[in-house]
Amino acid sequence: MRIKLTLEYDGTAYAGWQRQQNALAVQQVVEEALARLTGEAVGVTGASRTDAGVHALGQVAHFDTHSPIPPEKFAFALNTMLPADVRVSSSGPAAPDFHARFSARGKRYRYLMYDATHASALYRGLCAHSIYPLDVDRMDREAACMVGTHDFSAFAASGSTVKDTVRTITRCQVVRRQPFVVLTVEGNGFLYNMVRILAGTLMGVGSGKLAPGAVARALETGDRLALGPTAPPQGLTLMEVFYP
Amino acid sequence: MRIKLTLEYDGTAYAGWQRQQNALAVQQVVEEALARLTGEAVGVTGASRTDAGVHALGQVAHFDTHSPIPPEKFAFALNTMLPADVRVSSSGPAAPDFHARFSARGKRYRYLMYDATHASALYRGLCAHSIYPLDVDRMDREAACMVGTHDFSAFAASGSTVKDTVRTITRCQVVRRQPFVVLTVEGNGFLYNMVRILAGTLMGVGSGKLAPGAVARALETGDRLALGPTAPPQGLTLMEVFYP
Repeated sequence: MRIKLTLEYDGTAYAGWQRQQNALAVQQVVEEALARLTGEAVGVTGASRTDAGVHALGQVAHFDTHSPIPPEKFAFALNTMLPADVRVSSSGPAAPDFHARFSARGKRYRYLMYDATHASALYRGLCAHSIYPLDVDRMDREAACMVGTHDFSAFAASGSTVKDTVRTITRCQVVRRQPFVVLTVEGNGFLYNMVRILAGTLMGVGSGKLAPGAVARALETGDRLALGPTAPPQGLTLMEVFYP
Repeated sequence: MRIKLTLEYDGTAYAGWQRQQNALAVQQVVEEALARLTGEAVGVTGASRTDAGVHALGQVAHFDTHSPIPPEKFAFALNTMLPADVRVSSSGPAAPDFHARFSARGKRYRYLMYDATHASALYRGLCAHSIYPLDVDRMDREAACMVGTHDFSAFAASGSTVKDTVRTITRCQVVRRQPFVVLTVEGNGFLYNMVRILAGTLMGVGSGKLAPGAVARALETGDRLALGPTAPPQGLTLMEVFYP
């Protein structure tokens, strides 16, 4: 039977979602907990290969099992075995053709920024620090240029080999929610590092280091150099994966 | 010259503010950074002796120094020496008779609760988990009974030797700010563990484990047993210390 999991994790201690040779990934931790629970060698497929240090409040994953454990009980059983920085927030039955990654129709990400002279001690694992004050209105206007169907090749990390760089962004906005400046971006797909390059660009525009219009210019020219630096991973959280 | 510091810290790794024999305290970390910076053996006095695991966004401290470093530059200089979980958010000159603890006229604390079937992975260091849903309106009505000048002896941790247990609470409210239920309490002083006993009591009332009216009964009878358990430290943050 196929089971769907919704997962929350603090990415600080992990080399991302995907299993790695020489570093601990969230996928490995979940697969090991499932193996202990079911006695099966279970492969777990995640919707998003979140990067090292990136968090998730709504990662989705699926796996197949012959275990008699009721689908909705996997969350409780797994949480007794998982470390405190990984939680299963819900579990349930999935259709046999449900695929966490390929069935997904879109995702929502959040990026938290913190603008103050000194970095935050308490929230340091959740946000990127800007020593310059951020102009949220200017950032939100810049963010709005992302919305629509565009070739986002300028937003692809260098070395990326993905061929189709056209994506549709349905929501991209910046608001101040003390003590953070919050970027919310939603779309049908994202290139590797796309949200972090966007966050770095918006922090550049918001602090006056980058001229407004950078996003539009980059979409026109495909030039990565028109954009700001890649913002650090700890500000990024995968919030939700959408399914039909 | 006397210097006033405002400090932020993540209390997770610390045995509280006050220097301990066999455990690391925030006071020690700040004093050691100051010693390296000034070459003096500097004693730092904090406004609040926050407990092990309790956080601060607005702890205040003072110290005396002969250092030629301009008062407002101490924040920058100390932050280059402090670990990332302790930050000085501002520094400045203080009057010779300013005392972080004895000059304080009041404090504001925040307690974060998280009500969901499963604990939070990402926010686990910031909040207390309630597996039962919390009725925020009921909690807020209960919290309102704290406001005023009362003998809070029922709220004193057992073993406490403080004589005067009368305090004035000027604000006590509970609101939902997703993903948290937030208790804010402000007053001219707090007994040891008072806010955490209050938080545990409100979580009890909010989840239906304790009958409403527990606070009023405890204030009347002085009976600690009328109240809920002491809530865990990680939900508590010292937000601000007030001075005339």
